[in-house]
Amino acid sequence: MNFIENIQFVNIIEFLGTFAFAISGVRLASTKNFDLFGAFTIGFVTAIGGGTLRDLFIGVTPFWMLNPVYLWATLLALLFVLLFKTKVVKLKYTFFLFDSIGLGLFVVVGAEKTLSMGFEPWVAVIMGTITGSFGGMLRDVLITEIPLIFRKEIYALACVIGAVFFTVAYVLGLNIVVNEILTASIVIIIRILAVKFHWHLPILKGEKQKQ
Amino acid sequence: MNFIENIQFVNIIEFLGTFAFAISGVRLASTKNFDLFGAFTIGFVTAIGGGTLRDLFIGVTPFWMLNPVYLWATLLALLFVLLFKTKVVKLKYTFFLFDSIGLGLFVVVGAEKTLSMGFEPWVAVIMGTITGSFGGMLRDVLITEIPLIFRKEIYALACVIGAVFFTVAYVLGLNIVVNEILTASIVIIIRILAVKFHWHLPILKGEKQKQ
Amino acid sequence: MNFIENIQFVNIIEFLGTFAFAISGVRLASTKNFDLFGAFTIGFVTAIGGGTLRDLFIGVTPFWMLNPVYLWATLLALLFVLLFKTKVVKLKYTFFLFDSIGLGLFVVVGAEKTLSMGFEPWVAVIMGTITGSFGGMLRDVLITEIPLIFRKEIYALACVIGAVFFTVAYVLGLNIVVNEILTASIVIIIRILAVKFHWHLPILKGEKQKQ
Repeated sequence: MNFIENIQFVNIIEFLGTFAFAISGVRLASTKNFDLFGAFTIGFVTAIGGGTLRDLFIGVTPFWMLNPVYLWATLLALLFVLLFKTKVVKLKYTFFLFDSIGLGLFVVVGAEKTLSMGFEPWVAVIMGTITGSFGGMLRDVLITEIPLIFRKEIYALACVIGAVFFTVAYVLGLNIVVNEILTASIVIIIRILAVKFHWHLPILKGEKQKQ
Repeated sequence: MNFIENIQFVNIIEFLGTFAFAISGVRLASTKNFDLFGAFTIGFVTAIGGGTLRDLFIGVTPFWMLNPVYLWATLLALLFVLLFKTKVVKLKYTFFLFDSIGLGLFVVVGAEKTLSMGFEPWVAVIMGTITGSFGGMLRDVLITEIPLIFRKEIYALACVIGAVFFTVAYVLGLNIVVNEILTASIVIIIRILAVKFHWHLPILKGEKQKQ
Repeated sequence: MNFIENIQFVNIIEFLGTFAFAISGVRLASTKNFDLFGAFTIGFVTAIGGGTLRDLFIGVTPFWMLNPVYLWATLLALLFVLLFKTKVVKLKYTFFLFDSIGLGLFVVVGAEKTLSMGFEPWVAVIMGTITGSFGGMLRDVLITEIPLIFRKEIYALACVIGAVFFTVAYVLGLNIVVNEILTASIVIIIRILAVKFHWHLPILKGEKQKQ
């Protein structure tokens, strides 16, 4: 992924995004009274889970095994929650912003990496979505809560729209850096508007089904 | 897998099986009041989860990333449940039949693909079973219910018996098409008889164990 | 892994470790009234889950697909629990010892295999820990309980310390057999002392977080 290695700015954003994702995992773990190891693991899974699934699916070594920065970002997140517990709550809008920026970047990375491996565009859309949203899903499974993403988050929709935009623009030949910036912005804006205006997808009202 | 690409009839059966598996996932998601994205994801995981695990284990690209038909089958299942909610309940015997046929085919595909990769016969038995039954297990984990398959379904046993039959017959040199048809029939018949006559495996009565 | 194939003693220990891990899975399954298939699956996942995740991450075929001994160890564990239910409870200190010895060996295998694939030392530490401790985590997720390892077990810490020791000693050029024996002993001793003296990691007391 030389597009990432070459752009220092993206590195910083990626670090902040990983940090923000890990913070959300560590905080959730602390509500369950997990120990330090549990909190670290949940934070790490939240931050790298989506990208790990993507890498297993497209057949490459999980990205976090090639660069320890994701480990450091998670350790820092754990330390941060331990030291500044009250501050974390007060800073929730800052973290929401980091989290949204991270989401935008993760979608871009997921779709672009998949396309660069020669998979078809519709696979890139799925992988962009998985990269952005399945870390939180794995986190919820590990703490045995029904994944939030299945019920009321607009997370997934922001990922899908962003991934579709990126992939279509990529196929149409848009300049890659412009495409990256536009896609990330779209994801971030949808995510922020969705939370502000309580957007959500229609809920399926089910029959009371006996298995 | 040219044995599948060459047989149009199998393609249709596979589509119906995927559709039926996805329907079961979408319906279960609707009982949990999931949104559209959640229902789609659960339907997709139910349909392709077992084969995906198999493909990761045998070291090939997950099958659904090479052909969008599984995606379409799941979208159709979601649409179907939305449009014909009452009809789905009335059609439950039809879906049970599709589901059983799909199960039979999934077991065949799982065992045959594994053998064609050069793994030993006992690995093929495990992979046939995983292909048929682990999609439902992943579905249950995602909705945080104890997997049905561990408690009262005969699903797993039908898969194991079918996979053992296919593998033994394959090693003995039985004609592959005959073997495919016989194996699928065995799985389907065991599944139907098991539901009709309430067959189930012995339950382990446990000590009240404190961890 | 010729270091394992060449040392018969390690083979026996590995079998006992797998057996002990599987016993713990089967017993837990029996407290949930799982059927035979469910109990076997939970036992197998407990025994091979950590090593399977490691092998998927480092990009090799899961170890248990290359040698049926792990399957036999799990079947034996299932049989053992069925036949000697009361005895299993009485023998709990014996099983605790097997389990600890297995843990020590699994950490060694995990770290050594990862280093032999050319990954960096810090990756080996993670993979040693995953090999030793994530089978139990997968077991708990499958029975929809919050993984024990996140809350009060010292399991994980014993793995981390052992994996760090092995990796540092490996990089420093310590004789491999000496390293294997020392590392396994360290893991076993920490595990035993931790249970005896109720050692545990600090717990994160969380804000009552609304998602």
